[in-house]
Amino acid sequence: MSETMQRISLAERPIGAPGYHNFRLETIEIPALVGEDVLVEIEYISLDPYMRGRMDDAKSYASPVPIGGTMEGGAVGRVIASKSAKFAVGDYAFGQLGWATHGSVPACELRKLDPGLMPITTALGVLGMPGFTGWYGLNEHGRPKTDETLVVAAATGPVGSMVGQIAKAHGLHVVGIAGGNKKCTLAVNKFGFDHCLDHKAYEDSQSMRKALQELCPKGVDIYFENVAGKILDAILPLMNTGARIPICGMISWYNAGALGAKAGGDTDKLPKMWRSILVKKMSVNGFIISDHWDQYSDFLSDVVPMVASGQISYEEDIVSGLENAPKAFIGLLEGQNFGKLIVKVK
Amino acid sequence: MSETMQRISLAERPIGAPGYHNFRLETIEIPALVGEDVLVEIEYISLDPYMRGRMDDAKSYASPVPIGGTMEGGAVGRVIASKSAKFAVGDYAFGQLGWATHGSVPACELRKLDPGLMPITTALGVLGMPGFTGWYGLNEHGRPKTDETLVVAAATGPVGSMVGQIAKAHGLHVVGIAGGNKKCTLAVNKFGFDHCLDHKAYEDSQSMRKALQELCPKGVDIYFENVAGKILDAILPLMNTGARIPICGMISWYNAGALGAKAGGDTDKLPKMWRSILVKKMSVNGFIISDHWDQYSDFLSDVVPMVASGQISYEEDIVSGLENAPKAFIGLLEGQNFGKLIVKVK
Repeated sequence: MSETMQRISLAERPIGAPGYHNFRLETIEIPALVGEDVLVEIEYISLDPYMRGRMDDAKSYASPVPIGGTMEGGAVGRVIASKSAKFAVGDYAFGQLGWATHGSVPACELRKLDPGLMPITTALGVLGMPGFTGWYGLNEHGRPKTDETLVVAAATGPVGSMVGQIAKAHGLHVVGIAGGNKKCTLAVNKFGFDHCLDHKAYEDSQSMRKALQELCPKGVDIYFENVAGKILDAILPLMNTGARIPICGMISWYNAGALGAKAGGDTDKLPKMWRSILVKKMSVNGFIISDHWDQYSDFLSDVVPMVASGQISYEEDIVSGLENAPKAFIGLLEGQNFGKLIVKVK
Repeated sequence: MSETMQRISLAERPIGAPGYHNFRLETIEIPALVGEDVLVEIEYISLDPYMRGRMDDAKSYASPVPIGGTMEGGAVGRVIASKSAKFAVGDYAFGQLGWATHGSVPACELRKLDPGLMPITTALGVLGMPGFTGWYGLNEHGRPKTDETLVVAAATGPVGSMVGQIAKAHGLHVVGIAGGNKKCTLAVNKFGFDHCLDHKAYEDSQSMRKALQELCPKGVDIYFENVAGKILDAILPLMNTGARIPICGMISWYNAGALGAKAGGDTDKLPKMWRSILVKKMSVNGFIISDHWDQYSDFLSDVVPMVASGQISYEEDIVSGLENAPKAFIGLLEGQNFGKLIVKVK
């Protein structure tokens, strides 16, 4: 067992796209094990887009990696020392061990893997956090229904390929977006997407929209959002009534400064809103009340007694004369009415 | 019974804010009743912000009012002629009768009112479409919980005042926003809001945010969206994790050209997205997969057999050497990986 280990630490916070100078390869001593610690010799590290967010100092759902700290990430490897009864030397395990050759964490933070069942690398992708993200987000927030149309970008990545394949299993029409012909071929031939659009072939969002429209003749019911940017622009007008957009990422904006980092970039407010919806796990729902008249009698049963008892008050602003309706309406749009605006005709 | 009626028609589509020239007061003949038609002498017409949208030619959830057509709107009045057994002369009814002195529609499109139970004007406001909008949107999409904080603008309007009062009935901390001291006093004294902020007292969204922050010391759990614009900007950073934003309108943008009308205005992409969410009744949900590890075993039960059988494929892009992790990660953000990116350490 080696007494030193290597790790990659965060040397400096990036402005815009990260460069080599933001990282540092270091040799350090393997920390002494305490409590229920288990020491894992890492065989594979997962690299995922979310790590870009951890390099910033911005307030988010997770703490940033401190300057000088080990870059965060999931990893799999073999236990080489253990102070816990739960892990023996030779066991394989997954944990958030970071970008390093070794990692020691309490046993409760490790998940044991059976390398005889599945290759251990699958715990980082298809059967790990990214695959789980696609499966959960699609089922929980996408609510797929047979014959609907789904679009997902980064279609050959571990999230997009899971989303597309699960959607196909549910009987959806599935269109991927990926960069380059080779990825698009993979999406269709290996992952079974009905079509895959090469976003590099389109200069702007309008031309991409036209191409997407041909591939989605019945519009888009689910857009699984992990890229944003130009793709979001292209797809928005193609969304159907009642469409769902689960948001798990927005990789095209991570380096662009659009999310409020210091490198300038997009001054649009949409990226900040989109990021807020993601990091605050918000639920944003449009609704048109005329779809819900079936619940109107429930409303009356609930509210009429409250109005009758005075628990719910109301204020009316009554203008006389049909001929005054335009003036009153113009004022309404400027907030000049005081309570519910009504025109008395007779 | 008069043989002519007056109505207000759409003379011209507005560009930006509507003016008088967009409307025309006309005298026309009362149409002959056919089928199950009922003729109502209108006493009160409802004016509501959504009508601004009907004046545009834009694709939306409802058809635009045609040029020369009667301005659309809900109305209440007394039946003066009926070809239906369901309505007798003298009955009171609500229907989408338009901006007019009379309206005739099939009986099935009218709702009978009991003027002895509630004043008939309430069918246009507190007990009509606007009150129903507030009640439904809050309960269905706001999902209010005791001790949470809700913010709603246009607080003294028929939607906002319903939202605020229902939220108070659920035990929430309720903050309104309204224009001018008189409305704010009404919101607090009559409708029971805990606080009401006068948006006219704030030059920009930053100063409004500071004031809102003081009134919402525990952040905002529900923002009931009917105004958008500066208020949305102000409130966004105050939203709590898991917050809900039901969207029923965005009145501050209706005249601004921000939604794609021809008057220029805001070039930001957010208004278009916000409008899409509303008119397409979309559901947009951010999620962070690390909150859902409790469902990980369900995921494995579902997906492992599909991976084992080959129904779900995966692609891995394995880079060798810890020292190559930064380069691989930089490439990942540019889409250079091919499948799940993994660093082989050992």
